[in-house]
Amino acid sequence: MKENYVIGIDFGTDSVRALVVNADTGEQAGTAVQEYPRWKQGKYCDAGVSQFRQHPLDYLESLENAVRSALDQASPTVGQNVRGISVDTTGSTPVAVDKNGTPLALLPEFAENPNGMFILWKDHTANAEAEEINRLAHSHDIDFTKYVGGIYSSEWFWAKILRTLRVDEAVREHAFSWVEHCDWISAELTGITDPLLLKRSRCAAGHKALWHQDFDGLPSNAFFRELDPLLDGLRDRLFADTATSDQPMGTISQEWAAKLGLPADVVIGVGAFDAHMGAVGALIEPYSLCKVIGTSTCDMLVAPNEEVGHLLIKGICGQVDGSIVPGMLGMEAGQSAFGDIYAWFSKLITEPVRALLGEEEAAKLSQKLIPHLAEQAAKLPVTEKDIIAIDWLNGRRTPDAKHTLKGGLLGLNLASDSARIFKALVEATAYGSKAIVERFRNEGVPIHQVIAIGGVAKKSAFVMQTLADVLNMPIKVAASEQACALGAAMFASVAAGVHANLQEAQEAISSGFDAVYQPREAQSAVYQQLYQKYLQAGAYIENEFLQKGYLQLT
Amino acid sequence: MKENYVIGIDFGTDSVRALVVNADTGEQAGTAVQEYPRWKQGKYCDAGVSQFRQHPLDYLESLENAVRSALDQASPTVGQNVRGISVDTTGSTPVAVDKNGTPLALLPEFAENPNGMFILWKDHTANAEAEEINRLAHSHDIDFTKYVGGIYSSEWFWAKILRTLRVDEAVREHAFSWVEHCDWISAELTGITDPLLLKRSRCAAGHKALWHQDFDGLPSNAFFRELDPLLDGLRDRLFADTATSDQPMGTISQEWAAKLGLPADVVIGVGAFDAHMGAVGALIEPYSLCKVIGTSTCDMLVAPNEEVGHLLIKGICGQVDGSIVPGMLGMEAGQSAFGDIYAWFSKLITEPVRALLGEEEAAKLSQKLIPHLAEQAAKLPVTEKDIIAIDWLNGRRTPDAKHTLKGGLLGLNLASDSARIFKALVEATAYGSKAIVERFRNEGVPIHQVIAIGGVAKKSAFVMQTLADVLNMPIKVAASEQACALGAAMFASVAAGVHANLQEAQEAISSGFDAVYQPREAQSAVYQQLYQKYLQAGAYIENEFLQKGYLQLT
Repeated sequence: MKENYVIGIDFGTDSVRALVVNADTGEQAGTAVQEYPRWKQGKYCDAGVSQFRQHPLDYLESLENAVRSALDQASPTVGQNVRGISVDTTGSTPVAVDKNGTPLALLPEFAENPNGMFILWKDHTANAEAEEINRLAHSHDIDFTKYVGGIYSSEWFWAKILRTLRVDEAVREHAFSWVEHCDWISAELTGITDPLLLKRSRCAAGHKALWHQDFDGLPSNAFFRELDPLLDGLRDRLFADTATSDQPMGTISQEWAAKLGLPADVVIGVGAFDAHMGAVGALIEPYSLCKVIGTSTCDMLVAPNEEVGHLLIKGICGQVDGSIVPGMLGMEAGQSAFGDIYAWFSKLITEPVRALLGEEEAAKLSQKLIPHLAEQAAKLPVTEKDIIAIDWLNGRRTPDAKHTLKGGLLGLNLASDSARIFKALVEATAYGSKAIVERFRNEGVPIHQVIAIGGVAKKSAFVMQTLADVLNMPIKVAASEQACALGAAMFASVAAGVHANLQEAQEAISSGFDAVYQPREAQSAVYQQLYQKYLQAGAYIENEFLQKGYLQLT
Repeated sequence: MKENYVIGIDFGTDSVRALVVNADTGEQAGTAVQEYPRWKQGKYCDAGVSQFRQHPLDYLESLENAVRSALDQASPTVGQNVRGISVDTTGSTPVAVDKNGTPLALLPEFAENPNGMFILWKDHTANAEAEEINRLAHSHDIDFTKYVGGIYSSEWFWAKILRTLRVDEAVREHAFSWVEHCDWISAELTGITDPLLLKRSRCAAGHKALWHQDFDGLPSNAFFRELDPLLDGLRDRLFADTATSDQPMGTISQEWAAKLGLPADVVIGVGAFDAHMGAVGALIEPYSLCKVIGTSTCDMLVAPNEEVGHLLIKGICGQVDGSIVPGMLGMEAGQSAFGDIYAWFSKLITEPVRALLGEEEAAKLSQKLIPHLAEQAAKLPVTEKDIIAIDWLNGRRTPDAKHTLKGGLLGLNLASDSARIFKALVEATAYGSKAIVERFRNEGVPIHQVIAIGGVAKKSAFVMQTLADVLNMPIKVAASEQACALGAAMFASVAAGVHANLQEAQEAISSGFDAVYQPREAQSAVYQQLYQKYLQAGAYIENEFLQKGYLQLT
């Protein structure tokens, strides 16, 4: 019997993972992770102004190494039986390309220019441009932000394009079009990178580029011209159509087939964002919120178009038909810091130890610290007098994006020790999650349970139990450590025709769940009160404390 | 020529210090410190309910040891030339005594009963009783709190008495009267401890027991009976008159002269509180705020009665004729946590290090941490976007005492490191100081400069410079490490007749100042804006965040 293998490729913030899976049995034949070498050196970034760029060579080199390493782990025949490859990436992570679809940084004159590189999702240099887009959209006859929650973010496509065109004349002259990372990599694997021909991901286009069927594609050229004459005409050099990720992008190029040691007929699927494919890998189902919990969170929700398609959900990151599961409305939200907040607190303690006791002691401490704090925090009672933390240490993604917000701690006294503060920080990230759930509910979309994936979901039982208590809902944790790559593999098997549809692919390939957290009634009751305090304190910080001059990013 | 020596004795929270001084030259002939042995073991205390008690034997034993050790350092003839001894103590630190003036804990049946011991200034078990006193006082035809800022504190005399009488029947039956620590020790040294005969300190009585000339002494018995029938008649077993500390309490008893190896004619002065005598030791002058800066602060101010005697200053800890310098109005305020806040932050970092890297590394870290943080913090710019901390981690003493308040940190982001938070905490303690200064000014009492004494004033240039910048006033730091004992020695020399008045004694004995911090214009300008943020955030915490159920002490 002929064996069918597929490869899911997951480009994260720091590294790319390749996963080779038997599409019929779900057996994982090989997996490998490669870090981005230039990124690791801190190149092209400036955290002080929130500039985060990635060089296209980082992607190309690490992709080749990761796939080859993953295949090396499998038996020698596996490579010849690979049928499809699909890719997910972070996003919105766009790049300026020339007429051939070549990212400018791959041209010699732009090789070291950060504005010719991919502008990573978390780059916030375009705060001012996002504000301008919001102002114009809200005063325009059609509000083009209505399907992205009413607020356009500086982390997204158009804000980044506008910013770059304004600040870099050379890029302005050479940028023919702009492409998202997930589209460019998929197209690159097929060899057809012409920006007017390559299929654009429905997921990326709908959530970040304001594409919608009702607009006949992207917002009108008149809108963009009014926003800034620099954008005049760009719409025609982008795209009108989009594709869901069950569709093929094309067939692998000879060059990549040779590089990776794969057959010439491997199908390359249409790409999508990591969290969206991760939700598929974790068996998202209607009205279950799938949370990808790592340094930040991406929160995915699907529901039948006929039940929720008429709603306009305010303050989330978008609602797009087919962006997660083809045929269903896909909704996205997220928290701009989650595990990053625990890491911040850990660093707060570890940094002076590094300075005063040395690197070795700091490393030892750093390794044990968060588990220690979680263990201590888990022993503490939950009372209505507990410290309240506000989780906006990296701004707020949803509900109602505002990247300039800051966090806080209230209710401190001399007995507030590290465990009590850690507990408050964990609770704050859970309150941030609850604010998203409540927003969906208030807008008419019920949520019945949470499916969790990502590093924090797998590593910290204390965090997950607190989250279940605060949300007062059960949380199922996906068994796979690599749900995004798994979801990409599922899409690859559909795009390549191994399976007729996504549901069949999920049944064949899924590795199920390995933990369920049930909410505890007593804690949950107290948390409902503390959550009101969180909302009240948050409203104070947002509306009164952070006044005008205070708002600008440092 | 006959030499004249005096001894200043300073009972602090953890230990007693004895200082032997040449009253004519200021030469310091010997000094010694003795810790309280039972207190050091944590006996009779329960931090969880804020109960802090000290056994009278701790005072007696450590007093004897400290004085003998200090005299041992001096040449053998010094002891025979001692003319006077004066004592300062913490306060309000009262004790229940029997008819002989014996503290109940010195009787066998009360030896282990914390309610028969001294109730240390920072004991907060009487929060509810303080509230009752305030309610009744404010509705009474005379508001007996008018000379203590309008708010009676749970740290003070009457609240502690009422609480103890309510909770301990045995003490209720055996307590004939109540005596402050500074009065009892001074009387004990003379051997005349009859509570109806011993001279009561003007300082303690006026600031903590509601004594005032205008009331003909203490508030009326009718007032106390209405407060609680348990207090009916107690007024007559206390005192009607008070004395300033330039007055003698009496002559040393034979027993104590023998114990200490002193002549029979040594004069014992009337006692006072540590901060008040410290202000004298640091050469307090009219309209200079003398801050004793340690774990908390005591802020002392003097001004001519004829200039400010007609004012009723709201929200401070009291205004008492002669409580600091005889003949001048003495005003007291203070911050309930200052150095304690830095120690809290240090512990926050050190505690997990102790748990994970061991005692030795934690001790090494602990020793270097605050200087390291101060060094890093001093390098940071002062900007209007900086983190704002609220310093009420131990409640608020002044302005407007409220021990149930809590602190906070606002404006945190992922770049908020330990140095930035430490800087915010230091600034918060300075804002707390500024709130006191502004209160005095708003009530009609100008303040021109600050005189600083205490551990923090001597140890941290960063803290003192920040304080000068925030207050926008120069700060002079007293040269002596033991200003309180020095002040007591000055009073001893007046009480014993070595000097005709306090000014002469100060001129002879003072060791002057050793550092002056000038405010820096640029920083000062930004701090005026940040202080407004502090006030705004504090008002939010006080009026909105800490709602009813949240207020109770844990």
